[in-house]
Amino acid sequence: MKQLVLQVEAILDQALPSEQTAPTVLHESMRYSTLGGGKRLRALLAMGACAALGGDVNATSGLVAAIEMIHAYSLIHDDLPCMDDDDLRRGKPTNHIVYGEAVAVLTGDALLTEAFAELARMPEKCGIDYQTTVQVIAEVAQGAGSQGMVGGQIVDIASQEQQMDEETLRYIHQHKTGALFRAALRGGALIGGANAEQLAAITRYAENFGLAFQITDDILDETGEAEQLGKAVQTDQARGKLTYPRLFGLEESQEMARRCVEECHASLSSFTDQADLLRELASFIIQRDH
Amino acid sequence: MKQLVLQVEAILDQALPSEQTAPTVLHESMRYSTLGGGKRLRALLAMGACAALGGDVNATSGLVAAIEMIHAYSLIHDDLPCMDDDDLRRGKPTNHIVYGEAVAVLTGDALLTEAFAELARMPEKCGIDYQTTVQVIAEVAQGAGSQGMVGGQIVDIASQEQQMDEETLRYIHQHKTGALFRAALRGGALIGGANAEQLAAITRYAENFGLAFQITDDILDETGEAEQLGKAVQTDQARGKLTYPRLFGLEESQEMARRCVEECHASLSSFTDQADLLRELASFIIQRDH
Repeated sequence: MKQLVLQVEAILDQALPSEQTAPTVLHESMRYSTLGGGKRLRALLAMGACAALGGDVNATSGLVAAIEMIHAYSLIHDDLPCMDDDDLRRGKPTNHIVYGEAVAVLTGDALLTEAFAELARMPEKCGIDYQTTVQVIAEVAQGAGSQGMVGGQIVDIASQEQQMDEETLRYIHQHKTGALFRAALRGGALIGGANAEQLAAITRYAENFGLAFQITDDILDETGEAEQLGKAVQTDQARGKLTYPRLFGLEESQEMARRCVEECHASLSSFTDQADLLRELASFIIQRDH
Repeated sequence: MKQLVLQVEAILDQALPSEQTAPTVLHESMRYSTLGGGKRLRALLAMGACAALGGDVNATSGLVAAIEMIHAYSLIHDDLPCMDDDDLRRGKPTNHIVYGEAVAVLTGDALLTEAFAELARMPEKCGIDYQTTVQVIAEVAQGAGSQGMVGGQIVDIASQEQQMDEETLRYIHQHKTGALFRAALRGGALIGGANAEQLAAITRYAENFGLAFQITDDILDETGEAEQLGKAVQTDQARGKLTYPRLFGLEESQEMARRCVEECHASLSSFTDQADLLRELASFIIQRDH
């Protein structure tokens, strides 16, 4: 897995415009917030889904770059003073602390746009046919958009001022983080040549993976160390946010996450050992300490 | 032309998620800033380029929606307090004045993403083949991205604190506004089935149109009425921004704009009367009072 994370870093380094390309401050800022950090979970999921279908993992490089750029843009905008107002991310000062708010907004905009430019390069760079390319672009746009990731973020913000129920909590998680996991997985599966049944299995994996991830994230926010996480902890509590531990208690939350991981494994039962990366990722997600 | 503007409005109304779709506040905000206003120049350029090639104008509806969504998103983010800090746009309070900064940032993000979702729907909704769809997506992403529109905006912001020269002014205009005009025109031409030579002619039109537009915009900022323009005037001067009238004087600027429009007409010399919409738009651009 470590090897793959290095590969993702190299893909991003190659895909992002260089710091020498004008406007240099924008490209420097895009690289600052995208390179050199992160677990690269979304990239690994895209690769894992493609591999599970027996596809060539190298063919996912465009999708991998796009998904990680979108994730990076979402963090930059989430961290803005008018949003979560965070100073620390992946152990480094957040983008707007380094470059100022205006550049941070534009850096996010540029990363989101560049993600689609990179997806449109898949036919020439990755040998993907045009129809599959359009399908993958549709998946990513849906996952990242108003009824996906951005939709989750807006409900999250709107809910901070009021009492949240379990349904809202689930909506936020399914959309804010789950939708991009899902796009990464389904995009990777499409590149791997999935049929409808296989795509359904990967989608079931995606939904359970997303929930396990989020429950664990909530648990880590409550129990983890800032140093390990590279970001502030107990911020959810400070903001009065509803979390799984607060709703169900720590033990029941851990049990829920475990059940989701079991579901992940069950959804892959008809796959060969080509799906082992996805199996590993599902088990990793609840064992991690950051 | 009025009829086409109404058609653009209908296309956007249909393409944008309804206000009843969750999250409702986000979709309401997206519609607030996209519908009911604007000259729809970019949409008309896309339609005009497609028509100039003898293509079916209705086939541009996906591109038209995408380009106008991207234009709307760029205005929302430009108007933010950390950017130009404007309260008025198209005669209405700007998005962040109505919905707050956090929602405004996310509304822009959602519109940009939805634009690419809409482009990816072109094969099914507009009957465009997959290869052309990918080419159009590449054009739009390039025009809107870090070496296009966002690149122009960042140089604009960076230059507000220092003395600007003509080269910088030209860079800003070519990128901040010119790049999206170009993408609209080239995208429309590709949908119309342009060959390389025709695409080059449309590109030459695009570059001259962009410059004529921007020079006229600068002139209007100096001489126009806020009521007519639907936004504050003499803001450039107040911000110490370099403009064409300040650099060359009012008369010479008007002369420059006229020469650009002549170039627009010259670039269309080998086209039939199918290019009349593009011809009309070029003449309109320097005669407008808003």
